[in-house]
Amino acid sequence: MEGRRVVGWAARDASGLLSPYSFTLRKTGPEDVVIKVLYCGMDHTDLHQMRNEVHSTNYPLVPGHEVVGEVVELGSEVKKYRVGDMVGVGCMVGSCGRCLSCNSNIEQYCNNRIFTYNGIYKDGRPTQGGFCSAMIVHQKFVVRIPEKLSPEQAAPLLCAGVTAYSPLRQFMGSGKVLNAGILGLGGVGHLGVKIAKAMGHHVTVISSSDKKREEALQHLGADAFLVSSNAAEMEEAANNLDYILDTVPALHPLQSYLSLLKVDGKLFLVGVSPKPLQFDATDLILGKKNITGSFIGSMEETQEILDFWAEKNLTSMIEIVKMDYVNKAFERMERSDVRYRFVVDVAGSNLE
Amino acid sequence: MEGRRVVGWAARDASGLLSPYSFTLRKTGPEDVVIKVLYCGMDHTDLHQMRNEVHSTNYPLVPGHEVVGEVVELGSEVKKYRVGDMVGVGCMVGSCGRCLSCNSNIEQYCNNRIFTYNGIYKDGRPTQGGFCSAMIVHQKFVVRIPEKLSPEQAAPLLCAGVTAYSPLRQFMGSGKVLNAGILGLGGVGHLGVKIAKAMGHHVTVISSSDKKREEALQHLGADAFLVSSNAAEMEEAANNLDYILDTVPALHPLQSYLSLLKVDGKLFLVGVSPKPLQFDATDLILGKKNITGSFIGSMEETQEILDFWAEKNLTSMIEIVKMDYVNKAFERMERSDVRYRFVVDVAGSNLE
Repeated sequence: MEGRRVVGWAARDASGLLSPYSFTLRKTGPEDVVIKVLYCGMDHTDLHQMRNEVHSTNYPLVPGHEVVGEVVELGSEVKKYRVGDMVGVGCMVGSCGRCLSCNSNIEQYCNNRIFTYNGIYKDGRPTQGGFCSAMIVHQKFVVRIPEKLSPEQAAPLLCAGVTAYSPLRQFMGSGKVLNAGILGLGGVGHLGVKIAKAMGHHVTVISSSDKKREEALQHLGADAFLVSSNAAEMEEAANNLDYILDTVPALHPLQSYLSLLKVDGKLFLVGVSPKPLQFDATDLILGKKNITGSFIGSMEETQEILDFWAEKNLTSMIEIVKMDYVNKAFERMERSDVRYRFVVDVAGSNLE
Repeated sequence: MEGRRVVGWAARDASGLLSPYSFTLRKTGPEDVVIKVLYCGMDHTDLHQMRNEVHSTNYPLVPGHEVVGEVVELGSEVKKYRVGDMVGVGCMVGSCGRCLSCNSNIEQYCNNRIFTYNGIYKDGRPTQGGFCSAMIVHQKFVVRIPEKLSPEQAAPLLCAGVTAYSPLRQFMGSGKVLNAGILGLGGVGHLGVKIAKAMGHHVTVISSSDKKREEALQHLGADAFLVSSNAAEMEEAANNLDYILDTVPALHPLQSYLSLLKVDGKLFLVGVSPKPLQFDATDLILGKKNITGSFIGSMEETQEILDFWAEKNLTSMIEIVKMDYVNKAFERMERSDVRYRFVVDVAGSNLE
């Protein structure tokens, strides 16, 4: 028995242009959840993969890893969800289940993790993402969308949101008013500001220019704004931050940002620079400073950020588009012409 | 009233050559401890400062910051020590006492810390180190040498030992057999091996060549030896260490060492590379790896390592020399011709 026939939008070559593509899902296994896709967020990683800029891309490639949809069918052993439930899928749909990372519930660090698209599933078939009428995902990699959250609002939390949340959750409930720095105000950064504020931290947005000052202070609720090219401002702000969420996916001078940290302060690196980053050993040693990498988040953390978002009544800033606008939207995303995340209304689009 | 007249060995210019130098200590304040110097360790920092290679050096400069001696006089308010006690002095003799670092008992990170030599004391006089017949130090910056420890054995613990101990003490009493890596087998590295072993860790010495294999395994008691230039050996050892104590004071490729760490593994940087260090953001992010700087240790930690050393019956590997050999000893230290620390028998030397 073959699985159901679906229609997605796929890249066919390194141009990265998406167009309709029809294919068949695997048949529903006992622990699988079949999801009718409603909304799917758009991310820079999608673009890099569509264009074969990171790993070698298998075409046709259906991107999309911030997927929100409705359960339409369940495998025989799935007890956790019911038909009609609103659920989400993030960057991963599988992992080995046996390694130390899997056993520690940080399966995003499993060396055999299976990405939502451009991966090979356990049955040997290519994985395909959420720019598609439906998906089929093992229940372990499905999260529940809280009732209070609208599905389109939830979408960016499944990758960008949990990426910001994962390194910050260690500060939850400490009761201390920490001084937070958010470096870079894109998809991840804008959610980082909201998460840090909701945790009660004093939030400084650090940006290379003055352009986003009003945005950061008025619309996102940041407490302070710092222009990294302003040497006097940077010097005045030195040794003051408990942590920096560094979302910049490009080469940037860590040195000047490390100088903003207090003794034992932490810089969380979540954006991948294609070129090696540099730092001065003396700065790190004399200031007891830390540079730590953090990769998306675990399934547990993904559920946590959704619940946290609902509990704190937070909203993400999104622009909803139809699928026939998606190529144009990627173009705009590339030049940062979006506040701050595109979300595709998949169910409301004509996919054919 | 002037303080007592002492004889030290001082550098007079950037040649760094030491020769006898007579000067006067400050008069004994109420919280001061006057110490007759018995032994003093030799460190690479001494050499850099003697040669004006780091900060601008004030000549004459009496180096030495691993000082062990006997209390010969006490200020009126010192209750903690008695005349005749064996005490130690490390890299610092003062700090502001008011900042967050001072209040958190990590005064080594105080921005106004006063180094044991080549600093300016609160009274405006230059500080001078332990290559000298006597020193006068505020009680806060004096530690007690446990009775079980011989004074010459204790000397290297006051800088090299506490530098290795400070980042490792967080693992004390966890009960877990951690996999430790020690990178670089010099003054700090050899003590790092002993401390990690005494904590019950499985210790791998990582070295650029095979030369120190026997030394590490037979004499220092390491469990494994890894040659960093052997790509096959390095690949086999990947993802296995909980932490690395990185003592290399030169430019080195962090990338290959980071690959040895487990998920959430920590690289502790304690050796200052004069050139910026590089790493690959992807490695750090996908492996949740940490790079952390650590600077000597606090006074509390200095006391702890001394007590730990005595409790565990550990020994450091030292070569004892007289003061008239000190210029030659620095020469030898520079070409790593010492196992592993020179200690000057100050009291047994003719200083004049």
